[in-house]
Amino acid sequence: MKIAIIGIGTVGTGVLELLNQEKNNIENRIGESIEVSWICDLKDTLKIESNLKFTKNYKEILNDNSVETIIELIGGNTTAFEIAKETLKSGKNLITANKHLLATKGIEIFEIAKKHNVKIFFEAAVAGGTPALSSIYEGTFSGGIKTITGILNGTSNYILNKMEEGSDYDSALKLAQEAGYAELDPTFDVKGIDTAHKISLLSYLVWGKLIDFKKINIKGIDKITKKDIEFAKNSGKRFKLIGEAKKINNQIIINVEPRLIEKNDQLYNVNDVYNGIKSYGIHLGETFFYGKGAGALPTATAIIGDLYKIKNSNAWY
Amino acid sequence: MKIAIIGIGTVGTGVLELLNQEKNNIENRIGESIEVSWICDLKDTLKIESNLKFTKNYKEILNDNSVETIIELIGGNTTAFEIAKETLKSGKNLITANKHLLATKGIEIFEIAKKHNVKIFFEAAVAGGTPALSSIYEGTFSGGIKTITGILNGTSNYILNKMEEGSDYDSALKLAQEAGYAELDPTFDVKGIDTAHKISLLSYLVWGKLIDFKKINIKGIDKITKKDIEFAKNSGKRFKLIGEAKKINNQIIINVEPRLIEKNDQLYNVNDVYNGIKSYGIHLGETFFYGKGAGALPTATAIIGDLYKIKNSNAWY
Repeated sequence: MKIAIIGIGTVGTGVLELLNQEKNNIENRIGESIEVSWICDLKDTLKIESNLKFTKNYKEILNDNSVETIIELIGGNTTAFEIAKETLKSGKNLITANKHLLATKGIEIFEIAKKHNVKIFFEAAVAGGTPALSSIYEGTFSGGIKTITGILNGTSNYILNKMEEGSDYDSALKLAQEAGYAELDPTFDVKGIDTAHKISLLSYLVWGKLIDFKKINIKGIDKITKKDIEFAKNSGKRFKLIGEAKKINNQIIINVEPRLIEKNDQLYNVNDVYNGIKSYGIHLGETFFYGKGAGALPTATAIIGDLYKIKNSNAWY
Repeated sequence: MKIAIIGIGTVGTGVLELLNQEKNNIENRIGESIEVSWICDLKDTLKIESNLKFTKNYKEILNDNSVETIIELIGGNTTAFEIAKETLKSGKNLITANKHLLATKGIEIFEIAKKHNVKIFFEAAVAGGTPALSSIYEGTFSGGIKTITGILNGTSNYILNKMEEGSDYDSALKLAQEAGYAELDPTFDVKGIDTAHKISLLSYLVWGKLIDFKKINIKGIDKITKKDIEFAKNSGKRFKLIGEAKKINNQIIINVEPRLIEKNDQLYNVNDVYNGIKSYGIHLGETFFYGKGAGALPTATAIIGDLYKIKNSNAWY
């Protein structure tokens, strides 16, 4: 399969590294060879990857009929939205880690994919290195799932951890930025928007319906004080930023907010950039998935899993 | 899709119940209607399911060309082995919860399936209601997995729990039998054989190779004393029956044994009939899956997930 990667940042570099290091494992499992035909980025520095065709203009890739699948890793829902639509319309499959794009424009994007008979997979968009989405989609639909709950944003989880160690909110945020976890503009992470994107996609996988993003109630961690953290500690609990989707009388309701989590809850011990996803079904009972929520190679592992699915599974819509 | 169920015990009854209760969800996700054409069991009482065709002779089902998939739930590796082989040779797909069969006869069975171009799925064979196998197979193969470790046998886990509460081994086993967890002959559970079957299948999913079952080192919980349990408690640890597969220099080594598990280990809090599966990969890092290891409806949920895969995914061999 000939593929192209658009957006060569941390994760894109990770994908190239794994395709190289794990070539045999990857090709054995997928059942054919994988060739990166193009890489696309705005940074010139990438031209050094001399054996890969480089372009700054993604339209060049769309015109290459030999490319079967495009991996979009630029983020956001403006240019990425154009890329997604044009990718699908040109008859190519799309793999994306872009929760922002899918949670806000997913309905339109899935429609286009269906119409053009191509696939989209997005295992890396939620809980990066926690291989959960395949099992949730393929394995829980008859389990009578009523609730799905997760710690889905590593940055805010890291900040809450640092506050438990004594930092106030502002210095904890600074520590997260210095460690490379938080963006210069941390709005999406600390205000719960990133968590809302992700829980919305989990809800889609469970119940097959993408909720209007504006209907999600979102509260972030940016109002949490040292006093709140102290209070939680004294009562044997921890504050965690929780995304939760519930099905009540055929209605799906999604909330994002900081919650006090008790010691015996699986989510209590999810620390730093780890993510945890818990679900409850009237038939299936409780399940829990745990793994790294970010990082170049864990996320790249998820993207390469999507290459398997492009070749070996029907689409998820 | 027309299906047949051979073996109508706890789990078989659960499958029939879910197919009835969750009909819409199931058919929407799978993409077609599911019809149970036959049920097969040795018990006459089943004739009461008047709208389902009943037989005591599975060969009748093999001769029905309209049946596309057979769900085998009788267990063991004698009659079940015959049923599996004949199912595949007759061009029908096979879904099974039978770890004993696959861990000991899998190589031959997978060969026959390949030759006859039919599929086998077995999500319910390992950790029943923990939807883990799809994600492990599809999502971790490029993660550089080095170790996979699990609590995979609910019965022995329950017995160890009861011993922690003060019972000695014999009375804990009795309690497990009274609660319906342990069989009259509990050998496979308490001697670690069932765990060995399951870890062997997990190892197959991760590395694509089924180990000669005789090469697995197996130690059960039947030699654990009250004193051992006391010692563990006093050092802040717990005894758990652990199955572990490791890849060392391209060699896969599998061990089953009771181990002292520390408090900060994800497996420490896996209680009663719950199962936990932990993996570590040099690229992917740590992942953890948790859910019910048994029970009619959790296990039935896994089997119905396999019906999705029959229709929507390529085979796992």
